[in-house]
Amino acid sequence: MQIIKNKDRSRLIKAAKGLIPCDVSIDNVQLVNVLTGEIYPAGVDILDGVVVRVRESGRPCTPAAAQAVDGQGKYLLPGFIDVHMHVESTMMVPENFGKAAVVWGTTTAVTDPHEIANVMGVAGVKYMLDSAKRSPLRIYTLAPSCVPAVPHLEGAGAAFFAKEVSELLAEDGMIGVAEVMDYIGVINDDPRMHDIIQAGLDVDGFIQGHAPCVSGDDLCAYLCGGPVSDHEVRAAGELVEKLRLGMHANIKSSSLSDTVQEFIKGVKNVPIRDNVSICTDDVHAADLLSTGHISHVVNECVKGGISSMDAIRFATYNAARELRLEDGGCVAPGYVADLQIVSDLTFANRPDMVFVAGKMVSKDGVLLTEKAVKAIEPGVNTVNIPQITSPDVFGISSDKAEEKLLVFSAARSSMQPGQKLVYRSFPVENGKVVIPDIKENQFISVVNRHGSGDMTTVICSDFCLMHGCVASTISHDSHNMTIAYTDPKDAYVAAKALEKMGGGMVYVENGEVVTALPLPVAGLMSPLPVDEIAPVIAAMDEAVMKASDYRSPMLLAIAILALPVRPGIIITDRGIIRGETLEFIPQRLAA
Amino acid sequence: MQIIKNKDRSRLIKAAKGLIPCDVSIDNVQLVNVLTGEIYPAGVDILDGVVVRVRESGRPCTPAAAQAVDGQGKYLLPGFIDVHMHVESTMMVPENFGKAAVVWGTTTAVTDPHEIANVMGVAGVKYMLDSAKRSPLRIYTLAPSCVPAVPHLEGAGAAFFAKEVSELLAEDGMIGVAEVMDYIGVINDDPRMHDIIQAGLDVDGFIQGHAPCVSGDDLCAYLCGGPVSDHEVRAAGELVEKLRLGMHANIKSSSLSDTVQEFIKGVKNVPIRDNVSICTDDVHAADLLSTGHISHVVNECVKGGISSMDAIRFATYNAARELRLEDGGCVAPGYVADLQIVSDLTFANRPDMVFVAGKMVSKDGVLLTEKAVKAIEPGVNTVNIPQITSPDVFGISSDKAEEKLLVFSAARSSMQPGQKLVYRSFPVENGKVVIPDIKENQFISVVNRHGSGDMTTVICSDFCLMHGCVASTISHDSHNMTIAYTDPKDAYVAAKALEKMGGGMVYVENGEVVTALPLPVAGLMSPLPVDEIAPVIAAMDEAVMKASDYRSPMLLAIAILALPVRPGIIITDRGIIRGETLEFIPQRLAA
Repeated sequence: MQIIKNKDRSRLIKAAKGLIPCDVSIDNVQLVNVLTGEIYPAGVDILDGVVVRVRESGRPCTPAAAQAVDGQGKYLLPGFIDVHMHVESTMMVPENFGKAAVVWGTTTAVTDPHEIANVMGVAGVKYMLDSAKRSPLRIYTLAPSCVPAVPHLEGAGAAFFAKEVSELLAEDGMIGVAEVMDYIGVINDDPRMHDIIQAGLDVDGFIQGHAPCVSGDDLCAYLCGGPVSDHEVRAAGELVEKLRLGMHANIKSSSLSDTVQEFIKGVKNVPIRDNVSICTDDVHAADLLSTGHISHVVNECVKGGISSMDAIRFATYNAARELRLEDGGCVAPGYVADLQIVSDLTFANRPDMVFVAGKMVSKDGVLLTEKAVKAIEPGVNTVNIPQITSPDVFGISSDKAEEKLLVFSAARSSMQPGQKLVYRSFPVENGKVVIPDIKENQFISVVNRHGSGDMTTVICSDFCLMHGCVASTISHDSHNMTIAYTDPKDAYVAAKALEKMGGGMVYVENGEVVTALPLPVAGLMSPLPVDEIAPVIAAMDEAVMKASDYRSPMLLAIAILALPVRPGIIITDRGIIRGETLEFIPQRLAA
Repeated sequence: MQIIKNKDRSRLIKAAKGLIPCDVSIDNVQLVNVLTGEIYPAGVDILDGVVVRVRESGRPCTPAAAQAVDGQGKYLLPGFIDVHMHVESTMMVPENFGKAAVVWGTTTAVTDPHEIANVMGVAGVKYMLDSAKRSPLRIYTLAPSCVPAVPHLEGAGAAFFAKEVSELLAEDGMIGVAEVMDYIGVINDDPRMHDIIQAGLDVDGFIQGHAPCVSGDDLCAYLCGGPVSDHEVRAAGELVEKLRLGMHANIKSSSLSDTVQEFIKGVKNVPIRDNVSICTDDVHAADLLSTGHISHVVNECVKGGISSMDAIRFATYNAARELRLEDGGCVAPGYVADLQIVSDLTFANRPDMVFVAGKMVSKDGVLLTEKAVKAIEPGVNTVNIPQITSPDVFGISSDKAEEKLLVFSAARSSMQPGQKLVYRSFPVENGKVVIPDIKENQFISVVNRHGSGDMTTVICSDFCLMHGCVASTISHDSHNMTIAYTDPKDAYVAAKALEKMGGGMVYVENGEVVTALPLPVAGLMSPLPVDEIAPVIAAMDEAVMKASDYRSPMLLAIAILALPVRPGIIITDRGIIRGETLEFIPQRLAA
């Protein structure tokens, strides 16, 4: 597909011949030509957002362009492309994510609005599309393929079938089907996955894959099923196999995981690297503010021994080819003028200048477009918890004197296949199970927040909450309200606070909200810009870290307790599940 | 676009997993992986024309495939793709061209039916599309963009505007707009060329370029105008400039010209060669029989010092990317099984086996499909010459005693810009101009054969016809009948013979047809297969060579006398033209 459709070719031709003035001329740069692998001095002229002419260095742009840019001898290269990310992970809306990312040289991001889709369905995706239009960078959206991730095991806010995917694909800005995570469904030719992929193929869309550790015949079957890419490559050998089989492989360095080093090990064994590109998947606001975006992954590649030219190609030309953006990913006549000027080719710092469709949007690392402000919200409170009528709904009720109950382990090491079920006896007082060792074990409740009234409460070890209550409406993939607590009264206060805020995260102690991170957009995102939201997130992090001694950030830990597409034991609003078999597990054993 | 549309993904998935048997399994091969640049042992399984599985070597295909192929340890690689050629140049119809080319490992050819379009218009192109369907290889057709090459200067059989191009693009097997030769029209944004290109863009078609020696701002303007490729690169520096500007550059070794050596010189300066591919443009039947097709160009590249992997990529993966054949050009799951097995990677010989969509079509260099036979003809005699009423229409009439006439030089060295006009006095006898030195100068007539009644006769030097008469209906681009003769009576016999044959070539001496090459398909092609037509062409060549001492093949010389898109003086059915200015030149000066 063309990024800029229906270009006025007559104007472009005239500008290339110097018959009409260009909008922008860029002189005095070293052009990083990702088409030929060369770097040489040149001048570049732009009209209507399109590169119309690449001049030999020293020959002026005539007639003079409306804006003349002096590149000061620095490097000119294409803007970076993120082939896969979830804007929701930034806790910002697309408009503000864009303003935070573009200053790092990212000019295109392909997003999977999977999180909001699980909460708000088609309307949520349309909100993201609308917000994306106010972003200074180019955001392409894919239709989420796995909403909910696994049907019937959790109560989500929406369910997508081919019909919903087709409806979304008709919208402007949609370019295909997002990471097809249900690889087992694809390999087994499950009709729902089959039809969702077909909806993408019917509009000649990009079918993005997701196939961690899938190999051999299964990988061949997955590729025959339609997906063409993978960003879950975790080992060098896995990379080589996937590239050999024609898969586009995306190097990932997210705020949650980093596969760059293994990737580099693998890439070094492969002479031709056309099908390698780069993504960030999940990047947090604080990292966007201080560390970078795609630039950071390119920087890691270069530090790891990949040549700058290769790393740049991964993040530009290869990405554009993967996404079939025919007029993107390089600096040449007829191509869209998404560009950056940088002082060196290590990408540790923000670029000197960034251009989107020929418009300078960032200079010296500072946004030139309208300053990021509080964004428009969907205006819907997605926290719908009729079952939370009193503190009494929390904890575990019993009419016995003692209960033999499953103890769920929240340790990352327990989230493995074959996790053993541990049952233990607990005393009951006044009809409620009592945890005698409340410093070691706490309650966790997963509360459906989409109006079904379901909720599940378990006793959990290894969560390391020492006091108080942590609650979040970010809880993959259905984003039900997940609450860890010692005292049911705190849980009630937390749930009601989140309901009032329209979602987010809170830390409650002694019946009072101590710290709050309001995320009123679907209970997932804040309307605030990066410099305002990053400190609020940091304060929330700090409050929770103080309340626990969990080794990795507790906010992340709580966010994946209910994720049904991982190995180990999972709690959802509907009960307790074994991830490997997707079967419900009994919570109570006969005493 | 997908080569095989609407694949039955359910079947492919099942076959990849071994749940249903494949059609073909290929074992014991060294897989040339153009995706990674590696060569390693593997097995490949095919269903429904698609590669469904690439196995590690030694692991059998289970369940057993319907056909098991032993690769005997040889190399397995994708079939070759010819990105630009004119089937008419083979003097065979597509069906028989395909049968001649596929034994050389070519599995896809992109053709420009420009010649037949100039004679028969849309109907001619449709005939080619229909004939292509009976070919064992994959033929994609482009809509000719310049019919006639230059309007108003010659009488063609058809004129194409955007309407005709759009009509053709709606046909199955059409994938875009063929070589946009009128680069001056593109650069000047001539409305006809603009709209023809737009017709291609409207259907997301491939826009093939043709821009010999176009450079700098003009080249930028040409690229802004829509075309994306060029097969007329003639110098190393020209190649580097075109690759830098994002153009796909096609190495050409045709029966008429060979740019391989200059290309290699240029390519060696360019580290990344993704946009280099290969074409044959014009290849003669005899060369197809004995020398090869794309294989020959690959062979020349390898002999010139290009690595086999690079040369193979030019002819496979790069070509598929240029043409945007998304499921073509490599051996991987989901890709179309257009394959070849070869004993070595020099490509001097025919491959051991060739597969098109998984079907073995050639073995040990011999076609396995239905033997090539006399093809179906359009059933239209395109030689329409009402003006040829008697021998008296030939020669030059005059009512004077003497005429001062232009003497046209047919020397290749005269086909240059700024050719001087030479006028000379000739006596007139019985109302007819007499050439006293008939061994040095002869008559040439260009006879409209599309029914207009126009014809032009000139006196020509340097054609070196010693006796007799040579006549041809292959005469670029309008393919009017072009006749070189000493005696008008022979010219009449030749014209009437060609009329009866429906076109082709003849050599006439003393009023009798001595040798004939009937080309009844539009006066351009024979219905005969390669092994039958090649000797007839050779006999015709020989007869004409005997009659002249012109240094290069006279059949080629006669074919370009009337070509209006070349420098120098040009004869068309409407008069005499200067190629540089496209202005008519007077034949007679006042004595």
